[in-house]
Amino acid sequence: MSADTLAPDRLSRLGFGFRESKTLLSAVELGVFTALGEGPLDLAELSRRSGVHSRGARDFFDALVSLQLLTRDAQGRYANTPQCAQYLDRAKPGYIGGELEFANARQFGPWEKLTEALRTGTPQSGARGAKNYAAYYADRQVLENVAKGMSGGTLPVAERLAECFPWRDHNSLIDMGTAQGCLPVRIALAHPHMTGGGFDLPPLRDLFESYVAQHGLSDRLRFFAGDFFTDPLPRADVLVMGRVLHNWDLPAKIALLRKAYDSLPAGGALVVYERLIDDERRTNTAGFMASLNMLVMTTGGFDFSGADCKAWMAEVGFQHIEITPLTAVQSMIIGRKRTS
Amino acid sequence: MSADTLAPDRLSRLGFGFRESKTLLSAVELGVFTALGEGPLDLAELSRRSGVHSRGARDFFDALVSLQLLTRDAQGRYANTPQCAQYLDRAKPGYIGGELEFANARQFGPWEKLTEALRTGTPQSGARGAKNYAAYYADRQVLENVAKGMSGGTLPVAERLAECFPWRDHNSLIDMGTAQGCLPVRIALAHPHMTGGGFDLPPLRDLFESYVAQHGLSDRLRFFAGDFFTDPLPRADVLVMGRVLHNWDLPAKIALLRKAYDSLPAGGALVVYERLIDDERRTNTAGFMASLNMLVMTTGGFDFSGADCKAWMAEVGFQHIEITPLTAVQSMIIGRKRTS
Repeated sequence: MSADTLAPDRLSRLGFGFRESKTLLSAVELGVFTALGEGPLDLAELSRRSGVHSRGARDFFDALVSLQLLTRDAQGRYANTPQCAQYLDRAKPGYIGGELEFANARQFGPWEKLTEALRTGTPQSGARGAKNYAAYYADRQVLENVAKGMSGGTLPVAERLAECFPWRDHNSLIDMGTAQGCLPVRIALAHPHMTGGGFDLPPLRDLFESYVAQHGLSDRLRFFAGDFFTDPLPRADVLVMGRVLHNWDLPAKIALLRKAYDSLPAGGALVVYERLIDDERRTNTAGFMASLNMLVMTTGGFDFSGADCKAWMAEVGFQHIEITPLTAVQSMIIGRKRTS
Repeated sequence: MSADTLAPDRLSRLGFGFRESKTLLSAVELGVFTALGEGPLDLAELSRRSGVHSRGARDFFDALVSLQLLTRDAQGRYANTPQCAQYLDRAKPGYIGGELEFANARQFGPWEKLTEALRTGTPQSGARGAKNYAAYYADRQVLENVAKGMSGGTLPVAERLAECFPWRDHNSLIDMGTAQGCLPVRIALAHPHMTGGGFDLPPLRDLFESYVAQHGLSDRLRFFAGDFFTDPLPRADVLVMGRVLHNWDLPAKIALLRKAYDSLPAGGALVVYERLIDDERRTNTAGFMASLNMLVMTTGGFDFSGADCKAWMAEVGFQHIEITPLTAVQSMIIGRKRTS
């Protein structure tokens, strides 16, 4: 088949990609991978456990086979692929589906209005405006959804960050906008000398404290309640801001970086991580998608390149600024405060 | 980076794929590729012509660059890739964006409710139930949207079908559910001896007749108004049913195949084409997605494999049944009526 014959199919596949995407999101929502956590199930039993009506069941599960998310054996029994068993079974510690649950529950709907967001420059999410997390979190369901979602997105990055940063040179860390505390938990598990905790709005306290207790780290990690725009930051050798800056407009981004700089001790470090746009703005689709998500969901947020972030960090005083990739689509930028 | 490190990114990319998909759909809706039809434009001018607000403009167009749908030169001017120039510029005869416009306007929203459709087995589209096209088409905007959408989806298939079927052995064709008439127009353009036309509900007449006239084929192609469940079919040597059968439940599918068989002359042929599910139900994601779309949009429709369709066609009397791939994801099944 010539490239020319394939071109319409490539455009079709991309344009209709929302269907494949939503098929995975619904599978996570329905707990298909969790239902298969104990072993293979036939069509009837898998349908029963995941609450899928017979009309669409066979097509749905076979679609997941065609997407290489499930396998189906000669007896017609479905099973998780090793990846889905590791990452999408809610009963497993490696579960990262929270991020997908969040996208499914909170983002897919507003994205239907992307065209309107592009035409007007205004968010289509209803609930979440700039600095409106407090209102957003008033709904407990939303709160848990967001917190779990953030852990899902953070876990692979946190595991890499535990390996890639010189934690032995520091003793304490504070994770700004910590949600459940996924990141400090990973760092503290990997580095027994580290103490500190997470900073976030007061409604997150319970979720953080129970998550930390569940990992046996309540003696080393504390919750610090506050708003990082209006309250002083807790003191620590290392501050982490993971996918925080992209939520805000440029003046707010700079204000947060300046506040972090001012609050660090001499020799302290700030670690920013994000789905960075490539400096040439040509290749990192995930960064652009994250930025368009900010357009749809917030009043002023946008994503940025490593070069953008380095320039802002230098502007507020950071030195020895370095960028290191953490996963295929996320990178960290480390800035250090002068050791006077 | 190990396969294990990439796995979460692969799951994320698939789960968040709705964003990339919607970015293309919005670009088509906003006429980005049409705006670039006359040549490259800088950011300001492209924003102006496609009606995009400055807040998201740069990220949006650079996202299209990262998706290899646009290029951006050293002066920052955006241009269509050759494929987008050929297929997504509304002013070009090869435009296939109607299908994406239709998906954007009519499917993305209902797909937000896929989980509900899976749980209940009932459609989430509001407007379109079984045999309810008449009500659906009462809205002129919907009608044009659907008709253009169908042409977008049909064009690449129709061009291949004009090459791959032995039209020289036949003199007339009727396309069942013809919409604008994209398919008979392609066949008649490629085969000057062919006559016939398209069969569809009465509201499609104007769109069909103007499309056919536009291609200078009014002397050879006619519109036949009717409902293929309740009215007799027009007579022709070849009947075509393209992406018709998948809309209906099994008894309706068989009834349509039987009616086609009965209406054909001895030696006549039926050509069915669809996004077939592979016989093993393991690989053709596009077929499964089309079928889940039927779950979301109709009361009883579903897609099927070539083996399924062959069995149904044999059951109503067709002989010498053959399957031929037309595009990367669509295939035709030809059945012949006994010559005697």
